[in-house]
Amino acid sequence: MADLSHRKAKAKVQIIGEDGKSLSNTKITVNQTNHEFLFGCGAFETLPYTNGPVVHNGNGSITNSKSPGTDRSVMEDRMQKWLGLFNYGTLPFYWGGFEPEEGKPHTEQLMNAATFLKSKGVKVKGHPLCWHTGCVSWLMNYDNETILKKQLERIRRDVGNFKGVIDMWDVINEVVIMPIYDKYDNAITRICKENGRVGLVRKVFEEAYQTNPNGTFLINDFNMSSNYEILIDGCLNSGAKINTIGLQSHQHQGVWGKEKQEEVLSRFEHFGLPIHFTENTIVAGPLVAPEITDLQDAHYEDDAATPELEEKQANDLEQMYRNLFENHPLVTAITNWDFGDGAWLNAPSGVIRKDGSLKPAYLRLQKLIKEEWHTRLEATTDNNGFVELEGFKGTYEIAAEKGKGSFVLAAGMPSVSVVIK
Amino acid sequence: MADLSHRKAKAKVQIIGEDGKSLSNTKITVNQTNHEFLFGCGAFETLPYTNGPVVHNGNGSITNSKSPGTDRSVMEDRMQKWLGLFNYGTLPFYWGGFEPEEGKPHTEQLMNAATFLKSKGVKVKGHPLCWHTGCVSWLMNYDNETILKKQLERIRRDVGNFKGVIDMWDVINEVVIMPIYDKYDNAITRICKENGRVGLVRKVFEEAYQTNPNGTFLINDFNMSSNYEILIDGCLNSGAKINTIGLQSHQHQGVWGKEKQEEVLSRFEHFGLPIHFTENTIVAGPLVAPEITDLQDAHYEDDAATPELEEKQANDLEQMYRNLFENHPLVTAITNWDFGDGAWLNAPSGVIRKDGSLKPAYLRLQKLIKEEWHTRLEATTDNNGFVELEGFKGTYEIAAEKGKGSFVLAAGMPSVSVVIK
Repeated sequence: MADLSHRKAKAKVQIIGEDGKSLSNTKITVNQTNHEFLFGCGAFETLPYTNGPVVHNGNGSITNSKSPGTDRSVMEDRMQKWLGLFNYGTLPFYWGGFEPEEGKPHTEQLMNAATFLKSKGVKVKGHPLCWHTGCVSWLMNYDNETILKKQLERIRRDVGNFKGVIDMWDVINEVVIMPIYDKYDNAITRICKENGRVGLVRKVFEEAYQTNPNGTFLINDFNMSSNYEILIDGCLNSGAKINTIGLQSHQHQGVWGKEKQEEVLSRFEHFGLPIHFTENTIVAGPLVAPEITDLQDAHYEDDAATPELEEKQANDLEQMYRNLFENHPLVTAITNWDFGDGAWLNAPSGVIRKDGSLKPAYLRLQKLIKEEWHTRLEATTDNNGFVELEGFKGTYEIAAEKGKGSFVLAAGMPSVSVVIK
Repeated sequence: MADLSHRKAKAKVQIIGEDGKSLSNTKITVNQTNHEFLFGCGAFETLPYTNGPVVHNGNGSITNSKSPGTDRSVMEDRMQKWLGLFNYGTLPFYWGGFEPEEGKPHTEQLMNAATFLKSKGVKVKGHPLCWHTGCVSWLMNYDNETILKKQLERIRRDVGNFKGVIDMWDVINEVVIMPIYDKYDNAITRICKENGRVGLVRKVFEEAYQTNPNGTFLINDFNMSSNYEILIDGCLNSGAKINTIGLQSHQHQGVWGKEKQEEVLSRFEHFGLPIHFTENTIVAGPLVAPEITDLQDAHYEDDAATPELEEKQANDLEQMYRNLFENHPLVTAITNWDFGDGAWLNAPSGVIRKDGSLKPAYLRLQKLIKEEWHTRLEATTDNNGFVELEGFKGTYEIAAEKGKGSFVLAAGMPSVSVVIK
């Protein structure tokens, strides 16, 4: 059995009645209602769910002919399944989709989606605030100085507008390749080239931090080489306000396995910052050929998945989640990128199928998150109404005959009072 | 004809006699005596030349059974040939050779070599002050805090002792690999791992800069990938006092060619700092097989060089020097690593052979440095003793019937007076 003490906390909990008196010698049920650890997923379909099927989110849109977002009952079913597994969602803020026409951002659509998720106890991250891919073309009409100014204004505006609803952002995405990205001319590559990687990183994080000093701000990349490690080293030493490291792990061309997980983590854990696996993909389909250097060139057939491959996907996911959760205290979030099969590249990369049925991957994660790493127990309070509790960090509900109460079990809170009513 | 205006300067020079009066309508000869551009070479053999054959320089020593440094006439001949081509020399300060016993550095030996070179108009660079390879083993007896302290003290001591004689240093060598170097345990890898690359770079440069604020301080690496570019970006943004970028170009496994030269330079010129090619090797022998990942595992036979290969070496060297000198104003130094054949790996990598004879490479560089890129002209002063001169930047001698005088032709000095005596 793995040592999970880093995921758990202990507290002396006093149960108090509505009259303010402690409930002594009382039977209670303690049940975890949420995790401190962020078990996340792409939550793009919250946009049509909360706004109606037509969402003008451009590049970040999931509304198209193949989208499952047209039938309300289908949408409802999918959303319930999403909420049944995850406590953390990534919403798309790709500039190209968010503000296709300058000055008319889809703030309201995103706010609807974010507040809905928040109301369900789901933490929300905005992704991303600065990225060369999927950027707006109107930005290229300006000179570099103006582009940078507008990029920083965009950060101030969006981080500010969503403060309190979204306090976690992928501030900048894929900086290692950003200044040398050569597929097409774009405004962000231009300013990254001019300011240098570290110079641009410092500026965008400073803007985000000034706007929301308590925010969680990630740098995010798919490049797992020394390049990214050295980039982060330079950014931190030059004062960039990065407080969380984002690692992408799209595994279309080969499942990482434990060895690679360890190798990668050894190069990022030494910074001592929280690490998020921001975009994790393990596909229930054949691997994309190694000679394909750009995954955009890959495409999956509808019948790519088999029961065996779905089982393998579940096994590989379990191994990865288990290693990260059990052995790496600095890892505080894992986001499964695709909720449903048939999204990016038409890959069978989701935890539900196109028809909405649950895949082994869903059930396996559910077993981990909602059973194995879940705390539920029965106890009886002592003469003064106390119980000693140890469990996975998160929020809890306490139920007694007289009613219910809730509390948060976190590190460094040795005693808690819960009022039952 | 290439545009060489970036290598040249113009000045209005007034020729003055010993009596303080200008020499009007006088015939003079103007001859360049040195280059501002640093045409360098490893100058390790200056150590036995100035100290006698037995020099205890350990790792940095060139005194061994194969060394040409035992016969005085041979040494003299080689030194004259060295001085006949180069104006810039690298001296070995490998810690392992320089201070094999703690507290007893070979300062005097190095000072003898450096002052000799300086007296010949040769600029000297010390190499290197911090490096994981060839470091002293006694340093491993200390804890990391003490190792760092002693590393910084070493920098302060040596930069201080040689100030005015050596004002140019490779402060740190091969940082990209430094914290992950795994061939053997060593003290510098330990402190680089603990402080991080950028953290250590910042500290060692700060120490060098504080000791000699006018010094030229290089970071130096063989890793020409984005890793090194991103490292420099981070170091500069975090305030490291790097003022020159050092690029190694040991070409044992393939001559770079112009395309690679351009590709590499495009990634380092954008910092706007001077660039030195610090360790350039083009071998007059067969290429080392690509499957050899560590050049230390390669070895050349004595008969590896042929007349054709020596001619090719000269051609490749000329192409490279020509491209760097003619087309890249930020490149201000090129150091040919090996002076004579048979040094590292017994490679035919020098510009003279083991028997001391000049190779085509020597003659080709001599032609460039001493003829094509050399200014020599005759002129007649005007009524007020003036001549307008344009030539390659450097030092000049002016000879007239009445005697000689000298001056420096540099950018931003539009008028100069030269006293002839």
